[in-house]
Amino acid sequence: MIKDLKKYIRSIPDFPKKGIVFRDITTLIKEKAVFKYAIDELAKRYRDKKVDYIVSVESRGFIFGAALAYVIGCGVVPVRKKGKLPYDTHSVTYDLEYGRDTLEIHKDAFQEKKRILVLDDLLATGGTTRAVIDLIKKLGGEIVEVAFVIELEFLKGCGKIKDVPVFSLVKYDSE
Amino acid sequence: MIKDLKKYIRSIPDFPKKGIVFRDITTLIKEKAVFKYAIDELAKRYRDKKVDYIVSVESRGFIFGAALAYVIGCGVVPVRKKGKLPYDTHSVTYDLEYGRDTLEIHKDAFQEKKRILVLDDLLATGGTTRAVIDLIKKLGGEIVEVAFVIELEFLKGCGKIKDVPVFSLVKYDSE
Repeated sequence: MIKDLKKYIRSIPDFPKKGIVFRDITTLIKEKAVFKYAIDELAKRYRDKKVDYIVSVESRGFIFGAALAYVIGCGVVPVRKKGKLPYDTHSVTYDLEYGRDTLEIHKDAFQEKKRILVLDDLLATGGTTRAVIDLIKKLGGEIVEVAFVIELEFLKGCGKIKDVPVFSLVKYDSE
Repeated sequence: MIKDLKKYIRSIPDFPKKGIVFRDITTLIKEKAVFKYAIDELAKRYRDKKVDYIVSVESRGFIFGAALAYVIGCGVVPVRKKGKLPYDTHSVTYDLEYGRDTLEIHKDAFQEKKRILVLDDLLATGGTTRAVIDLIKKLGGEIVEVAFVIELEFLKGCGKIKDVPVFSLVKYDSE
């Protein structure tokens, strides 16, 4: 049994800039048994929750979202950066530490009342996840839960997404 | 049985620019049975090929690569745009129609002689795939095959990757 996923997450100081410790999941996903364990743990939690679609954010989110969607048997809906999705989209623009960013979802991604699981690799300050939730609400989706592989608790991202239940496989309480 | 995957691929004229017909896989991956069928077809082909790692390119490639890796039981290795991977990387720069692009792989992504399946959503002119193959060769990987969900045959991308076997689930012989 692989219980301590943290052992497989590489910590890289000063990336992408000084003072930040980057949590690198490439060392987790390249170990087949560990990647499978992470997906299976999520599948245990969501298999019986009648999820219609997993919404994931490019690009690391796709890695976990697509594998879990296959396993629990639901569709995959991508949220992408501005201009990447080819059809009619809803968009949400949000503030970053420096500047702003825009995320988009296809307007016909799913119908109202569909049950949506949001899955991303990382919860940091919560800005991206807030935008994803707002996009799903524009389409009338019902959010079952918002799940992360890693949560950086000390950044208090949960505070920005109090309207939805949150679950994380791994938590860090400091840099 | 869902045999005609093309029925689930949306064609969008003039995206990302005039004269191009974009093949949109978001309509395929949101249908759970169709997404599963596509992954299962790939799994049938590669399950017994002793694949150690699937190498996929951000970001649509991750969707298929990660799900297939889970199913056939191998690791996932991402190839990303310049500056996205946090650890030491090899990089390859290649020409696009306008300008150039750089792709990177972690230097410690896998060991020499490992058996690698390359999986991406689309083979167009082959420039990106050529770069991915060159990155894998820098690490001494043995390429089992290069697989695509969609191949745009009329763009003759195969001509750029003659040194490896190529497989595609769906082929288009014209725009």
